[in-house]
Amino acid sequence: MASVKSVAELAGVGIGTVSRVINNHPAVKPETRDRVLEAIRALNYTPNEVARNFKMQKSMMVALLLPAVNHPFFAELAYYIEDELDQQNYKLILCNSKGKPQKELYYFDVLNKNKVAGIIAITYNNVDQSVTGDIPVITIDRHISHEIACVTSDNFNGGRVAFNELLKAGVKHPAFLGYTRDPFINTANSEVELRKEGYLGEAQSRQIKCPNLEIPDIEGDLGERILKLFETGALNEIDGIFINGDVFASRFIKVATQRGIRVPEDLKVIGYDGLAKSSWDQSQLSSIQQPLEDMARTAVRLLLKAVDGGPVVQTTHRLPIKFLKGQTT
Amino acid sequence: MASVKSVAELAGVGIGTVSRVINNHPAVKPETRDRVLEAIRALNYTPNEVARNFKMQKSMMVALLLPAVNHPFFAELAYYIEDELDQQNYKLILCNSKGKPQKELYYFDVLNKNKVAGIIAITYNNVDQSVTGDIPVITIDRHISHEIACVTSDNFNGGRVAFNELLKAGVKHPAFLGYTRDPFINTANSEVELRKEGYLGEAQSRQIKCPNLEIPDIEGDLGERILKLFETGALNEIDGIFINGDVFASRFIKVATQRGIRVPEDLKVIGYDGLAKSSWDQSQLSSIQQPLEDMARTAVRLLLKAVDGGPVVQTTHRLPIKFLKGQTT
Repeated sequence: MASVKSVAELAGVGIGTVSRVINNHPAVKPETRDRVLEAIRALNYTPNEVARNFKMQKSMMVALLLPAVNHPFFAELAYYIEDELDQQNYKLILCNSKGKPQKELYYFDVLNKNKVAGIIAITYNNVDQSVTGDIPVITIDRHISHEIACVTSDNFNGGRVAFNELLKAGVKHPAFLGYTRDPFINTANSEVELRKEGYLGEAQSRQIKCPNLEIPDIEGDLGERILKLFETGALNEIDGIFINGDVFASRFIKVATQRGIRVPEDLKVIGYDGLAKSSWDQSQLSSIQQPLEDMARTAVRLLLKAVDGGPVVQTTHRLPIKFLKGQTT
Repeated sequence: MASVKSVAELAGVGIGTVSRVINNHPAVKPETRDRVLEAIRALNYTPNEVARNFKMQKSMMVALLLPAVNHPFFAELAYYIEDELDQQNYKLILCNSKGKPQKELYYFDVLNKNKVAGIIAITYNNVDQSVTGDIPVITIDRHISHEIACVTSDNFNGGRVAFNELLKAGVKHPAFLGYTRDPFINTANSEVELRKEGYLGEAQSRQIKCPNLEIPDIEGDLGERILKLFETGALNEIDGIFINGDVFASRFIKVATQRGIRVPEDLKVIGYDGLAKSSWDQSQLSSIQQPLEDMARTAVRLLLKAVDGGPVVQTTHRLPIKFLKGQTT
């Protein structure tokens, strides 16, 4: 089948000129237009160009790549991202990567090929090579490269606030609970790690002992892994704990309660996310509240600015957090 | 700008022939092709046709129209629908209608214009007029017309099972709690209503008094409306209740607990959905479990059969439910 290149060669013009003729661009001389149309006719050229040119038109689709939309945190983000996109006449393509590296890479590949207008990515693996620069990308909670803007909450300060709120509530023996990361992943780029650093940093500066009780983020029953933590005695002395994520914290409280530990009387708990206002949470968890709606709308606005050819904003947008007092502190 | 019609008139051919020339169809005589290409050139015709023809190609996009993806039930459905679509090489466009009629109609309009391959619709209002027949549609939990297949769970049986499980747990004074529907909406088409009918029907056949405590599904604090129910004394005699939806049931339990009512000792509660296995629920709710994953994958498979030109399946696919015993009965 004839290619745009062969049409350009036969007409003695550049590929751009062929494209302009097909798109009926005014800045083409009538003689040139005639030569190109003759070459098109001579080579029986059209269908691929039809598709290619349509693709060159502005796509009104934005893709959201996240681990799983059935996690409450991502469901809230997806809801507000779609709402903001719709207000700007864009449609949302939803992609669940399940947090798996090969699935994240696969989706980047598919989205690059399908020429979406832009991508909002919440990735947990090294996808740097997949960001080609052809399509604007905004990340949430993770840095891919210096050229990609990242929207996140003030994670470091969130960790600090959590520590001080536990102290205020009378905690003497605090601990941290989160997921350890795969050693093959460059965790330096994860904003989420900053919560731990802010929390443990505050403990250190106040010279308060504060064990880090991280467990691996593997498949299987989280409840059982939390139970093991109790059984090893790691929590014996602990009277207050900051847990990296509200869903994680709720599971922790459930296991603790089943072991007869009273929350907050015996053990005070602060989560991170602030999902208590969503339809999801019934547990009245004390938590560091991220401005989820604001994060979602900011990510969309930054992305669409880049889509419209605006300058690439190479910064990290850290939106302020606040402490949401529930019934677990 | 020149239209395909004016090109056809100038060339003295039908619109279909113009289309075939543009698409390089082999069944066009060289003389006819020349006449059409000359007319195209004379009228400076192309861009619209470029777009139109591209749209005629098979779209690999399927839209999911639901009230809000940040509701746990819809989040679970969306997750599995996307997973199944991806396995079939389709992408998911997510649309949150917020359950508002004008938003549902708006999205149908947008999706019809954008020529998605198909639509999976979870609607709560009269959208019958928007289903044009051009694009295959599958509904979940609601009948739009006799020509649209509906995937749902066995709601009527679910209501019956809930009633009998409450009796088994020792309940003497059962009640039903759900949302009343807008009187302007044709509720006869809602599968969700069948849960109530199954439940109250079972009470009637056993000659057990069973009040229907429906409240309006309006915006605002659900907790306050539940609180009012308690304050009116409607629940004074009740020792067991079936609540239409797990999120609703969890909110109810929270209010009851705050009033010093012990669940399940004083009051037994069964919800509907079976979200207890999801990351959402920590409340160990007893519930009628819908086969959510199966419903999602079935909806996708039925839709893609229709997209591939298979016969329209005009049936209701009621997938079996089962009772999930938690800690609230």
